[in-house]
Amino acid sequence: MSAPDPALLALNTITVKRWNLAQAIDGVARHGIRGISLWRDRLAELGLKNAASSIKAHGLTVTGLCRGGFFTSKDWRDDNRRAIEEAHELGARCLVLVVGGLPPGSKDLWAAHQQVKDSIQEILPEARKAGVPLAIEPLHPMQAAERACVNTLEHALDICDALGDGIGVAVDVYHVWWDPKLRSQIERAGRKRLLAYHICDWRVPTRDLLNDRAMMGDGVIDLPKIRSWVEAAGYSGFHEVEIFSELDWWKRDPDEVLATCKDRYARCT
Amino acid sequence: MSAPDPALLALNTITVKRWNLAQAIDGVARHGIRGISLWRDRLAELGLKNAASSIKAHGLTVTGLCRGGFFTSKDWRDDNRRAIEEAHELGARCLVLVVGGLPPGSKDLWAAHQQVKDSIQEILPEARKAGVPLAIEPLHPMQAAERACVNTLEHALDICDALGDGIGVAVDVYHVWWDPKLRSQIERAGRKRLLAYHICDWRVPTRDLLNDRAMMGDGVIDLPKIRSWVEAAGYSGFHEVEIFSELDWWKRDPDEVLATCKDRYARCT
Repeated sequence: MSAPDPALLALNTITVKRWNLAQAIDGVARHGIRGISLWRDRLAELGLKNAASSIKAHGLTVTGLCRGGFFTSKDWRDDNRRAIEEAHELGARCLVLVVGGLPPGSKDLWAAHQQVKDSIQEILPEARKAGVPLAIEPLHPMQAAERACVNTLEHALDICDALGDGIGVAVDVYHVWWDPKLRSQIERAGRKRLLAYHICDWRVPTRDLLNDRAMMGDGVIDLPKIRSWVEAAGYSGFHEVEIFSELDWWKRDPDEVLATCKDRYARCT
Repeated sequence: MSAPDPALLALNTITVKRWNLAQAIDGVARHGIRGISLWRDRLAELGLKNAASSIKAHGLTVTGLCRGGFFTSKDWRDDNRRAIEEAHELGARCLVLVVGGLPPGSKDLWAAHQQVKDSIQEILPEARKAGVPLAIEPLHPMQAAERACVNTLEHALDICDALGDGIGVAVDVYHVWWDPKLRSQIERAGRKRLLAYHICDWRVPTRDLLNDRAMMGDGVIDLPKIRSWVEAAGYSGFHEVEIFSELDWWKRDPDEVLATCKDRYARCT
């Protein structure tokens, strides 16, 4: 199949963790990357207005704000309200929801599922009003206890279908590549529910449950195939590189990382 | 709910890795545990006939032989034939299939799925003839690339339903606890397909993708709830403790480990 459109490459700034947000915005623009996804802690450091004006000055699209969610924590309401406001201010294509795992001391996964669904239902009207689509990101099942108890695209789409408009999914290949129902659930999601597409690769062996993702092409995920499914389902948005890599990419010069992202995006995805 | 039946406790010998098979058989019997599940490398050390006679002399039930499978390797045919013969000789309740991951150099997960299904179909007549039920064990998705590309109970049962009699599943809570469809798929499996039930716990945080399982009660899995589902589905076989634990339980005195297994089985499962 043909190479992906260079204009659709985006960078999640966690990939260049050594840079602060101002450096990341400049770097992304300098490398000719047109989309950026950012994290709220770094946004707070730079200041929302500074960030928004810098992003606008460089003509970048904010493909996602990371993150809302963690609905099984105590302060989830206020935190998600602020996240929606920030996403609105930045004109983000979506607010990425990492839904949260089991509450401390709980083993009741089914109650956590319910709490996630109820909480999203509660904030959804505010998100709709602000024009901020909410994107549930199913995380890998190995992160179910601590980060997100929604771990398949099917489960995420069941929640979306129950809640109606203004909500969809972020498909991150790292989290869902193993799923035998991946293709059918991407088809089910369709243009309406596919709000973000995140790429990286699965390293063999994987040495850490959180921060050992690989660069595209260095792992076992068939990225062109998954891209073909996402595109066939009607997705025409950005392809966002998101690499957590304590042992490798976070140690390197961020300019080298961005150059590699561009090269691998063109050749391996 | 009521405590589980003490007569249904079984031990997978990997849990007492410091013991050889002769020691493990003696130890299990000494602690009054009635079921044992063993590994073929240790069986080869002791010798099949020695093992079978020792297990028989102690009146133990072999709840499973670990393992057949690895259908994406080159020598899978001969290896699985030998495994079926050994399981037959031991009177094992099932031969546990760890189906194998991606072949070296491959990213074609869907071809691997097909290869697994075709291979099981090929060996199934021999297993039926030997009276050895084959138990597909879906492994945790984090082990998809290297050990097993069947990672949900639903996928395993789809294969079973396509292949007919003489095949079912091994439900290991460690691998499947996170699955939102766990209950419905256990119900679907029913008495016919539920061939083994493995217990341990999911540690938070988990420090290794393979060898960091927790003792029952030390993690976040709601073991009594999952047991209630398995029992409601008609399963009346053994509950087999299987703990891979490089950093903790493998370091301890195996007699302490077995005493702890008995205590936690009664109190936490």
